[in-house]
Amino acid sequence: YHAKGRKPFKLGLQLLKIIIVTVQLVLFGLSNQMVVTFKEENTAAFKHLFLKGYQDSAPQAVHTQMELYSHIHFAIEQYMALPQISLGQYAYVLGVGVNGSALSLCQRYYRRGTIDPVNDTFDIDPCVVTGRMAFILYTSDFFSLHSVGNSDYKNFTLKFYKLINVTIDFQLKAINIQTIINNEIPDCYTFAITIVMDNRAHSGKVKITLQNQASIKECKDPNVSGHAENYAREFFDVLVAIVCLLSLLLCGRSILRGILLQHVRNFSNTDLADSVSWGDRMEFINGWYILLIVSDVFTIVGSFIKIGIESKNLSSYDVCGILLGTSTLLVWVGVIRYLSFFQKYNILIVTLRAAFPNVIRFCCCAAAIYLGYCFCGWIVLGPYHAKFRSLSMVSECLFSLINGDDMFVTFAEMEQSGTLVWIFSQVYLYTFISLFIYMVLSLFIALITGAYDTIMVRVTDLHAFIAECT
Amino acid sequence: YHAKGRKPFKLGLQLLKIIIVTVQLVLFGLSNQMVVTFKEENTAAFKHLFLKGYQDSAPQAVHTQMELYSHIHFAIEQYMALPQISLGQYAYVLGVGVNGSALSLCQRYYRRGTIDPVNDTFDIDPCVVTGRMAFILYTSDFFSLHSVGNSDYKNFTLKFYKLINVTIDFQLKAINIQTIINNEIPDCYTFAITIVMDNRAHSGKVKITLQNQASIKECKDPNVSGHAENYAREFFDVLVAIVCLLSLLLCGRSILRGILLQHVRNFSNTDLADSVSWGDRMEFINGWYILLIVSDVFTIVGSFIKIGIESKNLSSYDVCGILLGTSTLLVWVGVIRYLSFFQKYNILIVTLRAAFPNVIRFCCCAAAIYLGYCFCGWIVLGPYHAKFRSLSMVSECLFSLINGDDMFVTFAEMEQSGTLVWIFSQVYLYTFISLFIYMVLSLFIALITGAYDTIMVRVTDLHAFIAECT
Amino acid sequence: YHAKGRKPFKLGLQLLKIIIVTVQLVLFGLSNQMVVTFKEENTAAFKHLFLKGYQDSAPQAVHTQMELYSHIHFAIEQYMALPQISLGQYAYVLGVGVNGSALSLCQRYYRRGTIDPVNDTFDIDPCVVTGRMAFILYTSDFFSLHSVGNSDYKNFTLKFYKLINVTIDFQLKAINIQTIINNEIPDCYTFAITIVMDNRAHSGKVKITLQNQASIKECKDPNVSGHAENYAREFFDVLVAIVCLLSLLLCGRSILRGILLQHVRNFSNTDLADSVSWGDRMEFINGWYILLIVSDVFTIVGSFIKIGIESKNLSSYDVCGILLGTSTLLVWVGVIRYLSFFQKYNILIVTLRAAFPNVIRFCCCAAAIYLGYCFCGWIVLGPYHAKFRSLSMVSECLFSLINGDDMFVTFAEMEQSGTLVWIFSQVYLYTFISLFIYMVLSLFIALITGAYDTIMVRVTDLHAFIAECT
Amino acid sequence: YHAKGRKPFKLGLQLLKIIIVTVQLVLFGLSNQMVVTFKEENTAAFKHLFLKGYQDSAPQAVHTQMELYSHIHFAIEQYMALPQISLGQYAYVLGVGVNGSALSLCQRYYRRGTIDPVNDTFDIDPCVVTGRMAFILYTSDFFSLHSVGNSDYKNFTLKFYKLINVTIDFQLKAINIQTIINNEIPDCYTFAITIVMDNRAHSGKVKITLQNQASIKECKDPNVSGHAENYAREFFDVLVAIVCLLSLLLCGRSILRGILLQHVRNFSNTDLADSVSWGDRMEFINGWYILLIVSDVFTIVGSFIKIGIESKNLSSYDVCGILLGTSTLLVWVGVIRYLSFFQKYNILIVTLRAAFPNVIRFCCCAAAIYLGYCFCGWIVLGPYHAKFRSLSMVSECLFSLINGDDMFVTFAEMEQSGTLVWIFSQVYLYTFISLFIYMVLSLFIALITGAYDTIMVRVTDLHAFIAECT
Repeated sequence: YHAKGRKPFKLGLQLLKIIIVTVQLVLFGLSNQMVVTFKEENTAAFKHLFLKGYQDSAPQAVHTQMELYSHIHFAIEQYMALPQISLGQYAYVLGVGVNGSALSLCQRYYRRGTIDPVNDTFDIDPCVVTGRMAFILYTSDFFSLHSVGNSDYKNFTLKFYKLINVTIDFQLKAINIQTIINNEIPDCYTFAITIVMDNRAHSGKVKITLQNQASIKECKDPNVSGHAENYAREFFDVLVAIVCLLSLLLCGRSILRGILLQHVRNFSNTDLADSVSWGDRMEFINGWYILLIVSDVFTIVGSFIKIGIESKNLSSYDVCGILLGTSTLLVWVGVIRYLSFFQKYNILIVTLRAAFPNVIRFCCCAAAIYLGYCFCGWIVLGPYHAKFRSLSMVSECLFSLINGDDMFVTFAEMEQSGTLVWIFSQVYLYTFISLFIYMVLSLFIALITGAYDTIMVRVTDLHAFIAECT
Repeated sequence: YHAKGRKPFKLGLQLLKIIIVTVQLVLFGLSNQMVVTFKEENTAAFKHLFLKGYQDSAPQAVHTQMELYSHIHFAIEQYMALPQISLGQYAYVLGVGVNGSALSLCQRYYRRGTIDPVNDTFDIDPCVVTGRMAFILYTSDFFSLHSVGNSDYKNFTLKFYKLINVTIDFQLKAINIQTIINNEIPDCYTFAITIVMDNRAHSGKVKITLQNQASIKECKDPNVSGHAENYAREFFDVLVAIVCLLSLLLCGRSILRGILLQHVRNFSNTDLADSVSWGDRMEFINGWYILLIVSDVFTIVGSFIKIGIESKNLSSYDVCGILLGTSTLLVWVGVIRYLSFFQKYNILIVTLRAAFPNVIRFCCCAAAIYLGYCFCGWIVLGPYHAKFRSLSMVSECLFSLINGDDMFVTFAEMEQSGTLVWIFSQVYLYTFISLFIYMVLSLFIALITGAYDTIMVRVTDLHAFIAECT
Repeated sequence: YHAKGRKPFKLGLQLLKIIIVTVQLVLFGLSNQMVVTFKEENTAAFKHLFLKGYQDSAPQAVHTQMELYSHIHFAIEQYMALPQISLGQYAYVLGVGVNGSALSLCQRYYRRGTIDPVNDTFDIDPCVVTGRMAFILYTSDFFSLHSVGNSDYKNFTLKFYKLINVTIDFQLKAINIQTIINNEIPDCYTFAITIVMDNRAHSGKVKITLQNQASIKECKDPNVSGHAENYAREFFDVLVAIVCLLSLLLCGRSILRGILLQHVRNFSNTDLADSVSWGDRMEFINGWYILLIVSDVFTIVGSFIKIGIESKNLSSYDVCGILLGTSTLLVWVGVIRYLSFFQKYNILIVTLRAAFPNVIRFCCCAAAIYLGYCFCGWIVLGPYHAKFRSLSMVSECLFSLINGDDMFVTFAEMEQSGTLVWIFSQVYLYTFISLFIYMVLSLFIALITGAYDTIMVRVTDLHAFIAECT
Repeated sequence: YHAKGRKPFKLGLQLLKIIIVTVQLVLFGLSNQMVVTFKEENTAAFKHLFLKGYQDSAPQAVHTQMELYSHIHFAIEQYMALPQISLGQYAYVLGVGVNGSALSLCQRYYRRGTIDPVNDTFDIDPCVVTGRMAFILYTSDFFSLHSVGNSDYKNFTLKFYKLINVTIDFQLKAINIQTIINNEIPDCYTFAITIVMDNRAHSGKVKITLQNQASIKECKDPNVSGHAENYAREFFDVLVAIVCLLSLLLCGRSILRGILLQHVRNFSNTDLADSVSWGDRMEFINGWYILLIVSDVFTIVGSFIKIGIESKNLSSYDVCGILLGTSTLLVWVGVIRYLSFFQKYNILIVTLRAAFPNVIRFCCCAAAIYLGYCFCGWIVLGPYHAKFRSLSMVSECLFSLINGDDMFVTFAEMEQSGTLVWIFSQVYLYTFISLFIYMVLSLFIALITGAYDTIMVRVTDLHAFIAECT
């Protein structure tokens, strides 16, 4: 048992941790958001600038040879005229393509390929060859284009029958000056843009996508009037790391003590009558400690990555986000531990713990049936329904259906498949939904209601016993 | 206890209150609706008239310099030609812009700004300067345009690299003559229209929005054949206010008496054996009284604001709506109090009240986990999913997911992010939904079922006891 | 009690009724479907033919004067060129418009209207005047147009400032020859088409709708090779009516007997110890009988209307559908009565009946809160959210939200309103959904679980009692 | 009882079966997916190539004569120019149309048809005549067109008043060379394309659809560098079949033994006191055996079909998928049997089995009401709502509504129908949803909670009894 005098300190430390970890997360989120918005809006702008006839959030595809050529020409022409047309301030990056060019236009095709559907014969060498064409832009003269190799990009011809894909690669630089509103120093971005025209399927349909990979670095010579460097952020991150380290040490000590205590106990008394209940309690306390330790370690690592990101040495936003996010989640879940010190709150948590083993057991049974339905749905309905294309999508779709997703749409899309598959889909969907919504969900409720009743009876008996004794 | 003779009067007053408060609300809603529709349809018409290529409910954005100029020219040309093209009868409002002009075209930009992405250098002064251009329309000649300052709006050039936004401001007047169908006097509207082209993000994408601020006033010289002024509405509002005041006074008296009674009781008998149960009952009755008082106060304040709106002195529709709406909600909730006088109805309400503390306690535990998930989801998934952009949206999204929103869409949008984030999102969504739908919802049901069973057992025991005694 | 010998006959009659009523419904549905499809596809075709720039399922509106004129001219030109352009075989109906013309073009406007938004003055006479223009098509020469009154439809000018609406009315005839595939005689249709351009709101936006009213009659001289008249359908309808009449008579006799029996019983024995249970049973049996009688009456009336429709004397498809549909629903619900003769099925029905009074009581309480939320949501959120525009829509929206509708969309649309309303909407939606989903739904389950437990205990006791006695 | 020594072998066999059946399914799914994608993308490409103004996932229809002609001409011109415009490598298939032509253009119409809506008379012969026009493409010269019969396809005239449909039929060949990425030999596809312009309804709207029927065969002379034939797949399929056969034989033996044992038992002892419980257990074991047998038979048949598909002798992907999918589902469901050997898991399964009869009984009652609602909704709401068009769709829609589908949309579409139908739809939807969600779902939960409580009590009693005895 913890001594009364020590607890307030540990409790205070934990409360402090909750607050500063949350504040750190919010600060990181707000600065992250501006970066994300800038990237995303630039990507949208590039799609409108370089893809012909682009419309928001519609996948692009062409179906005729002429369209494909005109898309390629449009992208190159727009690139060359960029300073005159773009609303943003972009700069070309030179020397990043093939032969030190600024823009490279490549086609990848099979080395040897004679496909003759007339006679049902073909002769293919699966090796892939890349034919490139490069354009150099000289810095002295931005707007003149000098093509190297083939003299003119309009002469670029595609071998459609063995073509795998066409890519246009180039890079652009930009500065995110929006951040000066928040008193931050603007960053310099380099966008590596790749337009891919994908003919891999050879199905008469070429899909066009634009990918934009952004890399961030500090600008060389930042000059913002009335603005000074500031290290408050880095200081705060270090503070968070220190608090978590302290929490980590205290936890470690408690666990160590617990283990020692148990060893001593096991040694001293050999009657095991109440050892099970002790073991349970030990395990429970350890559960909380493990949660605390994991959360502390994540926060410390996350804080150091965050410092790295802020000093532009690292750019792994995702990893940092996952570490800080998970640790905050765990810290908040840990709040329940302190609530469970109050007796009335405890009943609820005890109920959940009592029901938990049965719920997990039941989940195993349900999971077996669920997996069976996943495999079956994927193989039979996959060809006819977009939601059943891959195994992970089938699982998501079925899980969503159980929890109240739009079913009618799922039913409706099946109508176009053949009669046999349609009947199968009807049986499949009706049985799956009925089984899971009516049987599984009801049994979950029965398990938890049962556990609650048992706990309440035990509590009432305990009270009666106490009342009798006194 | 209330005397039998007084209750019918109070009950009658409350029933009268329910009726007239609802009637007042419906009248207010119907007249409000016409105002709202007129504003909204005019806004839609302005968007079609002044925004080039506008399509219903699609956000507008431009990506090239030429498009931006053509949008500006289009809006000004349409404004000048308004009387010839518009279907509605609009009048220009003169002298509201810069230098007493009718239309002002402004650009806001950073005072000093040299952005050079080629060398990764920049030099910005965060102060904002506004460059204006104004056009005056003389009343004598509606259709001629005289530009002041710069001679021609076609010469208006934008400094894209340091531009923050471009705004076009003007005002139009209109009369809502549709109301004469309802025998109301038409009102005069002034629409302050602002077209904003927002380049704040400097991301190569300029968002275009049209804002329309309407202000309503009485027309100067209303002349509708065969129509007279009428004060029935104002009279009704005053009646409502009086009834609520009466109800308020009666409530106040009851509370005062209750407090006095309790003081006397506490003074006379000092044994506190049953004081707790008394305290509970007292608290319960007070709950209803507080509800009544709040609803009465809201109705009285709301009625006066409504009178102000009808006499065109106030235009705070929202505040009035919230006051009247909340008071009506409370009045209807108060109906339950009268239903609970019947014994069988009472059981249900008593069950809810018995379960309430446990539900609230449980909500605290659930809220801690919920908050943790909110923070975690915002930071990790925010950059990749529109529903996770802001904390309030994350909360709305997760709450909706618990209650059966479309999950598949939420899952599906994650597919485009990287592998690490995709795996995280899968774990995040599956655990969140399972935890909340299966555990939390089931425990809610267990709590209420448990409370109901307890109440039923107590009621049965009571009946058995009564039966035994008689 | 019914004699054993008579029951099979009544049971058989009811089973026969279920089958033939369902068959009749299906037959009616199938023939109705063809009529509905023909009407709907013609309406779609007319929209594409007569509305300029029409796109499927998008509401049409114009915002400029020129657009409005061009829509009017387009509709009239398409009408005149109809035989050359339409894919269907349509015939003009002459002499149905003003002055015996084929097409009438009318504008409705206020008699006197001077609206001057410049000075905020107006002078309106709410009387409405109709200015018409008519075009006559002579049968001898289909394709020449003779306009009466004004010489040319291009000269038709609109007084926009006082215009209420413009309508174009004409009629077209067509024959639905698709029915000969089903061996039915084709019917002749007359479509009364009205194109309304509605400027009632004077908001600068004129909504354009096309209404199509179809009337059906028998063709004059039907001549289909190899087809004879057939009366099988009418015979079947009469059969259904007779069966239902028989069932009705048997029911009536049973009720009469029951009443007589009760009178006799009440007369003979005056001890009322078990009269309550008898009364209950009587009431229960009567419930089923009333259901049977209503269903029989609906079927008989529906059958006669159906005969009228088939002989082209009536065309009230909706009334007939509602009568036949409701009776079929009731007949199928009646199946439960026969299932409840089996003891195990009975438990379930008895449970529902036992829980019913409490459920209804609880619904009253919930309905009061629900109504409060409806009024409050309508008044406050109505102006900002399309789903809260009218009271019936608010009710539908809230009911859908309880049962798992898309919440996020509802939340998301609130973002554009002001801060005050946004905060209110958050509080409103979170409390409403939590209250109804977690409290109300849980209490429903508690009520029914409680009733089920009570019934099971009683059944077990009964069995124990029976076991003890024997 | 099974001997301890034999069980591990059978259990191992079943575990092996689960693994290899799932692996087989996944392999089949992956190779199937490529075939499906190729078909689908080609169909999309054909729609873009041959249908004028085609847009993704929008149904096409024309409303004027000129549009119909231009669609026909467009399709034929695109077909003739195919090698110049298509991105895929397609070859014409000659001699498949009428008179050995490559493309046939047919119109089907009523033999005699005089429809005169002016006088409401008609004269139709329901016999259908087909007028064809054929185009031959000679292999020597791909790009020249020789039309046979009528000299020019532009002269092809349609008799709109008696036209039933126009079809354009042709075939194209292609090779799916994408599969060489997976080291599979490419297959040769023949696409039979039919463009149907359907005027069957004679409603002024002609629907245009493109159907694409693919047939797959082995290419004649496959030549892929560095690739050899491989029979690993076929070997694996045979292995699966053998394992399943083994499992089938073991099952059969167990069932046979069980039957023999029962006969012996029935013969030896004639007291039937515990025969019921034995019968139950027997039935339960048999249930699992039947499941195993069905799954084994399905797998064996499916494996042989799969071998047929892989050797290009069969192409019944659907049948094979359904067989393999169902068997995998059953195999996974069978996992529960092994889980139920553990006592704690058993409780859950026993609960479900105990609740099952009541659930089924209750489903019967609910199904009667459900059917009634289906019929009623179909007949009344069918004409006004797309979701109520056919009986199966009504059933899907209502089932989805119970389980949390979008209700508001369903409500909203009713607004446009007449008042009578609107009121009916409101009553219909509110009662249906309330009845099913609140009553039916709650009773399901009550049934399962009740069964769980009963089982728990019995288990506790059993434990007490065992504790007492020992």
